[in-house]
Amino acid sequence: MTGESSTEDRTATGTTVLKLGGSVITDKSSPETLDGDHLARATDAVAAFEGELVLVHGGGSFGHHHASEHGITTTAGSHDAEGARAVHDAMRRLNDALLDALRERGVPALPVHPLSAATRDDSGELSLATGVVETMLDEGFVPVVQADVVAHAGRGVTVVSGDELVVVLATALDADRVGVCSGVPGVFDTDGVVIDRIDSFADVRAALGGSDATDVTGGMSAKVEALLGLDAPAWVFGLDDLDGFFDGASPGTRVD
Amino acid sequence: MTGESSTEDRTATGTTVLKLGGSVITDKSSPETLDGDHLARATDAVAAFEGELVLVHGGGSFGHHHASEHGITTTAGSHDAEGARAVHDAMRRLNDALLDALRERGVPALPVHPLSAATRDDSGELSLATGVVETMLDEGFVPVVQADVVAHAGRGVTVVSGDELVVVLATALDADRVGVCSGVPGVFDTDGVVIDRIDSFADVRAALGGSDATDVTGGMSAKVEALLGLDAPAWVFGLDDLDGFFDGASPGTRVD
Repeated sequence: MTGESSTEDRTATGTTVLKLGGSVITDKSSPETLDGDHLARATDAVAAFEGELVLVHGGGSFGHHHASEHGITTTAGSHDAEGARAVHDAMRRLNDALLDALRERGVPALPVHPLSAATRDDSGELSLATGVVETMLDEGFVPVVQADVVAHAGRGVTVVSGDELVVVLATALDADRVGVCSGVPGVFDTDGVVIDRIDSFADVRAALGGSDATDVTGGMSAKVEALLGLDAPAWVFGLDDLDGFFDGASPGTRVD
Repeated sequence: MTGESSTEDRTATGTTVLKLGGSVITDKSSPETLDGDHLARATDAVAAFEGELVLVHGGGSFGHHHASEHGITTTAGSHDAEGARAVHDAMRRLNDALLDALRERGVPALPVHPLSAATRDDSGELSLATGVVETMLDEGFVPVVQADVVAHAGRGVTVVSGDELVVVLATALDADRVGVCSGVPGVFDTDGVVIDRIDSFADVRAALGGSDATDVTGGMSAKVEALLGLDAPAWVFGLDDLDGFFDGASPGTRVD
């Protein structure tokens, strides 16, 4: 977001949507614990990037713990406002930590909380008011969108995952590039080797073990299937490749 | 929100939009200080109410202090993300305090942050994604909407006041009743007596000192003019009359 030619570069490169996985920036083995080293590396990379960027992040050890305790998933809802707030507030603490790290690096980041901006209808379909993100981008800010709970018609609140938000945002913003920075270096084949490129779900169904439509927050299979549905090319890669992704390289697994 | 016949009552009464003024629930003389007694009285009244309710609150000593420090008003914007976050985070702290007080009283309240849900276009007109509030209401929650900063086309971020949010929400939700619980018992005439009813701005222009269109957060004049534009009847009253308002009485000044 720094550098001398940012306006020109932003015009040239279009919008990038990047998801930072919860397993990348938190220590998933311990409740509400950041991975400080990973957080620093990820936000250093973001600060060095000169294009128009939307960040999305997952829950890691912040959201999942509370969601599990209150029995809230992407499909199992709750009408308990206290449980909903516990998940939301934990995600806000992670969002705040990410925003603070970005501020220290001069990135003009602003929070976006889907609880205030998104709903699910009675079929579970997600609607997100993306005008806020668009206006923030136009004004030079970097929106940082957290995984969250959202009001769900007939079910109280349910979880919305970072993966879902990436797909909805990339589509609404007509993104040029989508990155999913995860805890693994790419999508593995059955021999444990990173697949270079996936352009058809049928080709990788065996390696990925098929798609489970109810497993929206977890699972590489659902992630790949969702990314295949995008117009924009997407890459799944690990933190070591984040700088390369921002530089325009094709790290990890390309999905399109 | 408690009581035995809440479903029936909610159907009967329709939606109520209530603004709790920042000057009611905070001590405006001291930065980020709650008025604990007033907060308790206001939330006791909310907990006893059985209808469908949207709460809106102003900034009081939480938001105004930071907004002033960073030079952000409803029309003067800022591209400084740090200033925007300072105002937003202070308003979240007040919103959290209100939500905590409501939780203690068994009210299923959830936060709504306009920074994530609203924008202004280049003419300053506010767009708020109200589907979230509608779905929360349908699911039995009480949305608590804070005054905030919002992304503003061409100006970075500007302030959105509780008064503006009340008008937008009452219109979008087709509210039955609107309450503005403020630091005064109603709209005063030139003799300092509370006016019983206002149905035309012309009738009270002299007493209110005319309308200043740029003064959206402050001033009884702008408040009354905005409330006159609503389909729903509105009442401006003090905290002593909040129970009466919820009981269906016509306290303070009726504006419609």
